[in-house]
Amino acid sequence: MGTTHRRWRLDLGYDGTNFSGWAVQPDRRTVQGELEHWLSRVLRLDEPVRLVVAGRTDAGVHARAQVAHVDLPVGVDSTALLRRLRRVLSDAIVVHALTPAPDGFDARFSAIWRRYVYRLWDSASTPDPLFRHMVTLIPEELDLGHFNAAGNQLLGLRDFAPFCKPRSGATTIRTLLQLHAERAEDLPGTIECTLVADAFCHSMVRSVMGALVAVGAGRRDDNWFHQVMTAELRHNEVLVMPAKGLTLEEVGYPDEDHLARRAAEARSKRESTTPGTGNE
Amino acid sequence: MGTTHRRWRLDLGYDGTNFSGWAVQPDRRTVQGELEHWLSRVLRLDEPVRLVVAGRTDAGVHARAQVAHVDLPVGVDSTALLRRLRRVLSDAIVVHALTPAPDGFDARFSAIWRRYVYRLWDSASTPDPLFRHMVTLIPEELDLGHFNAAGNQLLGLRDFAPFCKPRSGATTIRTLLQLHAERAEDLPGTIECTLVADAFCHSMVRSVMGALVAVGAGRRDDNWFHQVMTAELRHNEVLVMPAKGLTLEEVGYPDEDHLARRAAEARSKRESTTPGTGNE
Repeated sequence: MGTTHRRWRLDLGYDGTNFSGWAVQPDRRTVQGELEHWLSRVLRLDEPVRLVVAGRTDAGVHARAQVAHVDLPVGVDSTALLRRLRRVLSDAIVVHALTPAPDGFDARFSAIWRRYVYRLWDSASTPDPLFRHMVTLIPEELDLGHFNAAGNQLLGLRDFAPFCKPRSGATTIRTLLQLHAERAEDLPGTIECTLVADAFCHSMVRSVMGALVAVGAGRRDDNWFHQVMTAELRHNEVLVMPAKGLTLEEVGYPDEDHLARRAAEARSKRESTTPGTGNE
Repeated sequence: MGTTHRRWRLDLGYDGTNFSGWAVQPDRRTVQGELEHWLSRVLRLDEPVRLVVAGRTDAGVHARAQVAHVDLPVGVDSTALLRRLRRVLSDAIVVHALTPAPDGFDARFSAIWRRYVYRLWDSASTPDPLFRHMVTLIPEELDLGHFNAAGNQLLGLRDFAPFCKPRSGATTIRTLLQLHAERAEDLPGTIECTLVADAFCHSMVRSVMGALVAVGAGRRDDNWFHQVMTAELRHNEVLVMPAKGLTLEEVGYPDEDHLARRAAEARSKRESTTPGTGNE
């Protein structure tokens, strides 16, 4: 990026139901594809626009506070651009803010943590049809004590290979900072499971949820969970939970002074020679 | 209803988005139509099943705690029926409970109050795409103090004819018990306007909201509101707000001892010779 371009930070949310995920794919409707198309059209650009995102969500996964960056030719009127984007975009995507990115900002590599929430209804919940696009229903009653005790064993720095789709050249070592399930007060009867990590590999949240739900619902015992979490590769008895229960809720960044340093560290640890498609 | 039948109370919720309202209509998908169809099929009844409901919601209006009653032949296993209904019904309708109705219970006429919430995003809100099917967006910022001050003037027993679609033979006199708008804590930035009345006439909530939003958003002044609320007939400058923002949240019933008496009183005050289609 030279002096002809300026980097912008986009804060946005979307209902992932009718998208094939974040990342651009040929002949598929994706959030990135929709945004890049309209940014380019609204600004009448000849060159392609490329967005970089904090959390590359899979098909059907939602986001409340997703963050992306984009380099645009200098001279963009961000207020007018934001207003025009809101007019043309589907109401399934809302761009909350478009602000000049601080020096060294990279939406993906500057991020220091991502917070996801997975929502469940069990047999003790009262499902609310108004929220059925963002909650997964399970037939059993979930033992939250058991669920959380098993989940606690995953906290800290570890290799999450048993829960990740392998990607050549990319590490599956992550630091899980928080994992806790509780019955929400704002969505009565709904179980909200919060997961915070420095980053997540592809399908990691939904695989961890699949293993913990199996234990919490009594389908599997603690021995099984121990085998799963200590396996060297993705365990074929772990179900990947449905996408619709998952929402990216927040992305954390360091102070402006530390943005560039953080980006350089993260890039060297995680960047792959092949383009990734998973959640970050 | 003789000794061959027993009355049941249904507690249910639905996402009204894809229904032409509660009440059965030829060739339309309605909540009542769907429920009556499946009750009859699951129980293999020869006679038609007829549901009576507390709040006859319009097309696109939602319900979280709707109440209905139905008279079914004796011998129904309610646990099995509830389980089978859940299996066959669209996930846009959830029957929470199916319980024997107490003596004298009438879902419509025994009810002593209905609580509706109308949800809005204004220019000070951060719209969340995940809730766009249940919130109406307005371009201005709403002055809640002004909105509530105007709304207070409607409290108590009065003729709501200026806000109701007329129905021959039916009174438009209602008692508005509560009307209050505030920014919700559980849906950040969303304005929730709660309206409680003994009953509502057709389109009353959405017309009252239309008048109050016009005042709160600064499109109309207090003189205009006074003219509207003291008009003898439905005022043609009052906009009926979109259905999707409206949800029936709760229905109140008296103690079992007073159910039959309440039903007789309400029926004599409100029942019309023509079948009604509005919210009650």
